Amino acid sequence: MVMNPLQQAEWIWYPNDYEVWLRGEVEGRREERGIPYPPMWKVERPYVNVAFRKKVQLDQEETLNIYAQGSLLMKVNDAVVYAPPPLRLPAGSYQLEFIVTERDTFPALFVSGTAAATDSSWKASCFTGKWVSPGSAGYSDPHRLPSVFSFDLEEQRPVRTWREADGRLLADFGKQTFGYLQLHGVQKGTQLFVYYGESLEEALDREYCELLDRIQIDCDVSWTHTKGRAFRYAAVEAAVPAGEQAFSLVHPVTCLYESLPVEYKGLFRCSDERINRIWSTSVYTLHLNTRELFLDGIKRDGWVWSGDAYESFLMNYYSFFELGVTKRTLAALRGKDPVESHLNTILDYSFYWFISMYDYYLYTGDMEFIRGQYRRMEGLMDFCLSRLNADGLVEGHPGDWVYIDWAEMDNTGEVCAEQLLMARSLEIMAYFSGKMGDRAETERYDSLANGLKSKTMALFWDEAQGGLVHHRAHGEVKPHLTKYANMFALMFGFLDEGRAETVKRRVMLNGEVQPIKTPYMRFHELSVLCDAGEHTKVLAEMRAYWGGMLDLGATSFWEEYDPSLQDSEQLSMYGRPYGKSLCHAWGASPIYLLGKHYLGVRPLEPGYSLYVIEPNLGDLDWIEGEVPTPMGTIRVYADREKLRVTSPGGTGYLRIRSSSLPAGYDGNCARMEDERYEIAITEPNRTYEIRYNM
Amino acid sequence: MVMNPLQQAEWIWYPNDYEVWLRGEVEGRREERGIPYPPMWKVERPYVNVAFRKKVQLDQEETLNIYAQGSLLMKVNDAVVYAPPPLRLPAGSYQLEFIVTERDTFPALFVSGTAAATDSSWKASCFTGKWVSPGSAGYSDPHRLPSVFSFDLEEQRPVRTWREADGRLLADFGKQTFGYLQLHGVQKGTQLFVYYGESLEEALDREYCELLDRIQIDCDVSWTHTKGRAFRYAAVEAAVPAGEQAFSLVHPVTCLYESLPVEYKGLFRCSDERINRIWSTSVYTLHLNTRELFLDGIKRDGWVWSGDAYESFLMNYYSFFELGVTKRTLAALRGKDPVESHLNTILDYSFYWFISMYDYYLYTGDMEFIRGQYRRMEGLMDFCLSRLNADGLVEGHPGDWVYIDWAEMDNTGEVCAEQLLMARSLEIMAYFSGKMGDRAETERYDSLANGLKSKTMALFWDEAQGGLVHHRAHGEVKPHLTKYANMFALMFGFLDEGRAETVKRRVMLNGEVQPIKTPYMRFHELSVLCDAGEHTKVLAEMRAYWGGMLDLGATSFWEEYDPSLQDSEQLSMYGRPYGKSLCHAWGASPIYLLGKHYLGVRPLEPGYSLYVIEPNLGDLDWIEGEVPTPMGTIRVYADREKLRVTSPGGTGYLRIRSSSLPAGYDGNCARMEDERYEIAITEPNRTYEIRYNM
Repeated sequence: MVMNPLQQAEWIWYPNDYEVWLRGEVEGRREERGIPYPPMWKVERPYVNVAFRKKVQLDQEETLNIYAQGSLLMKVNDAVVYAPPPLRLPAGSYQLEFIVTERDTFPALFVSGTAAATDSSWKASCFTGKWVSPGSAGYSDPHRLPSVFSFDLEEQRPVRTWREADGRLLADFGKQTFGYLQLHGVQKGTQLFVYYGESLEEALDREYCELLDRIQIDCDVSWTHTKGRAFRYAAVEAAVPAGEQAFSLVHPVTCLYESLPVEYKGLFRCSDERINRIWSTSVYTLHLNTRELFLDGIKRDGWVWSGDAYESFLMNYYSFFELGVTKRTLAALRGKDPVESHLNTILDYSFYWFISMYDYYLYTGDMEFIRGQYRRMEGLMDFCLSRLNADGLVEGHPGDWVYIDWAEMDNTGEVCAEQLLMARSLEIMAYFSGKMGDRAETERYDSLANGLKSKTMALFWDEAQGGLVHHRAHGEVKPHLTKYANMFALMFGFLDEGRAETVKRRVMLNGEVQPIKTPYMRFHELSVLCDAGEHTKVLAEMRAYWGGMLDLGATSFWEEYDPSLQDSEQLSMYGRPYGKSLCHAWGASPIYLLGKHYLGVRPLEPGYSLYVIEPNLGDLDWIEGEVPTPMGTIRVYADREKLRVTSPGGTGYLRIRSSSLPAGYDGNCARMEDERYEIAITEPNRTYEIRYNM
Repeated sequence: MVMNPLQQAEWIWYPNDYEVWLRGEVEGRREERGIPYPPMWKVERPYVNVAFRKKVQLDQEETLNIYAQGSLLMKVNDAVVYAPPPLRLPAGSYQLEFIVTERDTFPALFVSGTAAATDSSWKASCFTGKWVSPGSAGYSDPHRLPSVFSFDLEEQRPVRTWREADGRLLADFGKQTFGYLQLHGVQKGTQLFVYYGESLEEALDREYCELLDRIQIDCDVSWTHTKGRAFRYAAVEAAVPAGEQAFSLVHPVTCLYESLPVEYKGLFRCSDERINRIWSTSVYTLHLNTRELFLDGIKRDGWVWSGDAYESFLMNYYSFFELGVTKRTLAALRGKDPVESHLNTILDYSFYWFISMYDYYLYTGDMEFIRGQYRRMEGLMDFCLSRLNADGLVEGHPGDWVYIDWAEMDNTGEVCAEQLLMARSLEIMAYFSGKMGDRAETERYDSLANGLKSKTMALFWDEAQGGLVHHRAHGEVKPHLTKYANMFALMFGFLDEGRAETVKRRVMLNGEVQPIKTPYMRFHELSVLCDAGEHTKVLAEMRAYWGGMLDLGATSFWEEYDPSLQDSEQLSMYGRPYGKSLCHAWGASPIYLLGKHYLGVRPLEPGYSLYVIEPNLGDLDWIEGEVPTPMGTIRVYADREKLRVTSPGGTGYLRIRSSSLPAGYDGNCARMEDERYEIAITEPNRTYEIRYNM
C-alpha cells in the first residue's frame, strides 16, 4: 500500500495582489539626483486583510503546518483557535478559515498537508461577500516568503579604473550594468559621493548626472550598497583631506550584478556580424529590463509602462519565453478596481494592454490566465467605452495623456491612431468573449469595433495623400499625415488591398513623411515593412539605426536615436543633459523583427498548435536561429539553397519561395501561387531539410 | 504700515485619507487572548502618492518652509527642484506642485508662507485627472505630523492591590479604565504574564480572560506597556522561583490612563441620585469609547461600527459636542470607493450612516462637511439601490449581514425594519439633494422613498396584531412581530395618528412582545416611549435597567443586560465566558434620553437656529442641566412650580404644560391647546424664569 504523498502546497494570496504590490515596490525605487521620484499614476495596493477558506475532510488525524505572510487568525468551524500553529485536527470534516493581515507586503498563506494544502481549490475573500480563486505563482517553499524576490547575483569588476586629476576615482564596467556598488578597503566612517553614468560624460558631471549617492561607509573591509543602480561608469569622490587616499586596494570598486535568472531560449545568427551584434546587444538590453516586471529602462524610469511592456512581451516570445514576468506585468498593469484612469494615464496604453493579452494567448495558448483576467478586461473596456466622446470616438479627457510617440505632433482632438487601437481592442474583446462563451457580448463588441472602424476610415482617409491623416481637432480633420495610424491600420488588417499598397508606397516608404525617431515606434514601422516584403530594406535600416548606436559605443540600446544629431547631443532628452535612457527595453526590437520576419516563425493558432515558418534572408547569405514555443524550440537554418527546420510539435506551415519545385520533403507540398510553396511540418523533432531555388 | 501676517497654514491631505488611515490603525489593534484579530470587513487604505498644487503670485521674494509626511518631490512650473526645502522663490507667478509619497501613514503636506500657505485653496489629486479640495483638520503645527494623535495621559493608581494565594498580584483600579499598564520595581529581564479583566472573575481566569500579555521587562525601575488595554482588574503573574517576590514596591502596578481631551459640555442633575449616577456613569462610558473615533467598546471590539456610532453621535450632541471625532468617524465609516459592501458589511449600518449625516447637520448646521461628503452619500445610495431585490425591497445578498439587534429573530428574506431604514435614508438623500440644488434628484429620491414606504406598509402592517410584523421570507409574510420596525416607523413618522396610537399600546407597551435586551435598541425603544409621553415609565425603566447594572457593580455600562439572568451569567456573550463588553458606548444612551426628553432640548432647524425646549420631570421633583449647541450652552432648570432657561442664541420654543396661564415671561406666550403653552425664547443669555401649575 502506498501512502498518500503530501500534496504540493504553494503560497496563495488574493488574486493580483502580489503583482500590484510588486509593482508598487519596483516603481517606488525611482530616484532622480537623490530625490525619490514617485510614479505619475495612482499607486495601487493589496488588500490588508484577506480570508482564505476551504472545507476539508480528513480521513485520519493530521497536523497542518501553517505559514502566513502577515499576522494569522485561524478559525476552525467558525471558532477562533487561540494556540499558534501547527494545527492538529482529528479525522473529521472541517471548515477552515484563515485570515491573514499584512500592511507592508501582501497577505499570503501556506498550509501543508494532504487535503488542506493551499492550492487553487481554496477560496479567497476581501470581505465583500465574494469568494474567488486565489492567486499563486508556484512558490512552494514555506520558508521563503513570496514577497522575497529571487535574483541572480554575480560580482563584476570594472574593465578599467583610473583616477581623475581632481582625485575622483573612475570605474568603467565596460558595458551597461545594474546592481549594487561595492567599495573595498575604505575606512569605516568615510563619507563618499558617487556619481553614476550610462556614459562617461554623465559620470563625470556632478551637476547633471541623473543618479548619485551620498554614502557614509558603515563597515570595515567591504561595503555593499543597499540600492541597485543602473550605470556603466561610476565616479567615486571621497571627502578626505587632499593628499590622502580613500582607497588602498587594486580593485576598490566592484558591482554585484543583479539579474533575473532566465534561459536564453531564442537565438539568431547570420552571415552579417553587424546584425549579430545588434541581436546580442538587443537581448542584453532586454534582459537588463526583464526583472520583477518588464521595465522601460533601468536608469530611468524603472517603471512599468504598458506600451513599452507590449513590445517587451513580443521580444520575450522570441528570446527568454519567460512567462512569469509576462503574467506579473500584465496583472500589475491592470491594477485594481475601480478603473479611474487609463493605464499609466495614457489612452494608447490601455489599448496596448488588450493587444498584449491577445498576443499572450496567441503565443502561449494559456487560456487559464486569460480566464482569470477576463472580468478585468471587461472592466477596463467599460472604462474605455465610457470615455468615448459624443461622436463615439476616442478623445482625451482632462488628465489623460494622448501619447503615441516622442515626436513632434499635435494630439488634440480625435487622433486617428487611437481610434484604430480602440477598434483592435474591441475586436480582441469580441474574440475573448467568444472564448468565454458569451455570444451576446461577442456580437456587441464586434458591432462596436466595426462601427468605430468604418467611422474612422470615413473620417481620416485622405485619398489625395494616399493614407490616414493624423487627427481631427475642434471638428476639423487636419491634413497632417504621420506614419502611426497608417502602420497600425496595416498591422491590424484594417485596409483593403488597394489602400494597403497605397499606404505602403505613399506613406511607409515615403521619405517626405516625418521619420520615426524612437526604437519604440520603429518596432511597428519595420515590422510592417517586413509584412510588405521589404526585408532587405529593413536590414539596411537596422544596420544604420541600431548599428549607428553601436558605432557610438552603445552596449545596450537607447530610448531614442536620431542619426541626424551630433554625437554630443545624443545623451540629452526631456531637457536634461543625460535625461535619455541608454538601456531602454524598447530599444531591443531587433529581437522581434529578426525572429518573426527573418526566421519567420509565428503562431497562427494559440500556443503554436498551428504556426508558420517563413524564413527570409533579405540580403544575408545565411541565417539560423531558435524560437521558443510552449512545446519546446523550433530550429531554423536557411541559406540561398537550402533550409533546415526542426520543431517540437504542433503543425507548421513552412512557406518558401522557389523558382522550381522544392526538394527534400515528403508529405504535402502545396504550390500556393507562382514560386510560393507551403510544406506541412508535422513530425515532431524531425529535421526537415528542403532544397530550393531562390 | 502693517506687514502681511503669515497666513495660517495647516496640514492638508487627500480628502478622507486621514480618517481612513486612522480607522485602519485603530481597528488593527484588536487582540483576543494575544492573537491579532483583524476587522471582518475590508480594511481601506489611503493613496500612496498624492499631488498637491496651487498657482501663487508672490509680490516679493519669499522663502517657503515645506514639511511633508512622506517623501517629497517638488515641482515649480513643472521643473523638479533637486534641493531640499526651504524653497526660496523670487517675486513672480508660480505653479507649485508638490508630490508626497507615503506608505505607512498617509501623504500630507504643510507649506508656510503668505500666498502659498497650505489651506483649502490648494488642490489635491491621486492622479486620476481630477483635482479636489484637500482634507484637513486644523492641524497647524508643522512639527507635529498629522499621523500623531494627541491624547491626555494621567497616572492612575489602583484602589486596592493584593496577592492571591498562588502568588498572583491583583490590582483593582476601582473602575473601568483604558491605558498603558506600568510595572515598577521589577527586575530587568523578568518574564511576566498579565491577565486583564473588566470583572474580577475575568482577571482571575487565565484560561478564558479576553486580554492577556506575556511580557519581558526590558528596562530598570519602571516599565510601561506600549499597547493600551481596557480593564478594571489586572492580575500579574511573575515567572520567578517560588518564595521570591517579583515586586518590591508599595505601588508596583499603575496605569497611564489615556483619554481624548474633551470638554464636558452637557450636564444633567435631578432629585434622584440613582438617575444622577446613571447619567454620570453613562458619560464616563461614552468618554472611554470616544477616542480617535467612536468605538463600540474599549475591551472588544475597539472597532468602528456604524450602528453603534450612530447612537454615540447623538449622545455626543448632549455631552461633549465634540465634532472632530464625529466628522472623523463619519468619514472613516464611509471609507473609499468603490463601495463593495455595506458599512461593516451590515445592511442596517449603511442606513444608519445616512441618518447620522442628517443628525450631524441638524445638530451642527455644518453644511460644509455635508457638501464634502455628498458625492460619497450618492455613491453609497447607488450601491444600496443596486441591491434592491426584484420586488424593489431591501434583502440581504450573500456576504451581507442583516443584523438589527442581538436577539432571537429570523432575518431571512425582507425584514420590515430594513425597508423603513432604507426609506428614511432615501428621504435624507432627497433632503440633501435639495440643499445641493439638484431638484431632479430630490424628486427621484422622494419618489423612491414614498414607493418603498407604501409598499412596506401594505406588506407588513398586520391589522389583527396592531403593528408591523418582522419579515417576509420566501414570499410569505410571517406573523412574528417585534418592536424594531414598529419603533422605527414611529420615530420616522411613517404611521398615521391612529396606527401610531395602536402601535404604542399594542406593541411598545405590550409585555407579551419580545423584550429588547441591548441598551443599543433600548435607546430607540425608550426614546419612542418618551415621544409618546411615557416619561415616568421610562424613568422607571432606567432605574431598573441601568440601575440594575449599577447594582451589580457596574462602573460603566454594558453591551447587553438581561435582568432575568443570574449574576454569574452576566459576563458571558458570544459563547465566551467573558465575551461581553462591560464598557460599551451604546450602553450610555441615558445621556441622550435625559438630554432630549427630560431637559427636552432639541434642534428644529440645522444648528439650533430654531429649537425647542420642552422639559419633562416625569416623577422627579426637579431637573437641571446644560445642552451644548454650536452657539454655546442652553441651560435648563425645572421643578414642579417653575422653570428657568438661558440660551446663547437662536430662536427657542419653550413648551410647557400648565393648568393656568404661566407667569414670568414677557413677549409671546401662545396657548397651543388645553394646558399647553409655547413661549418664544429669543433674547440671548437672558435667564427666563417661568412659573406654572403642573
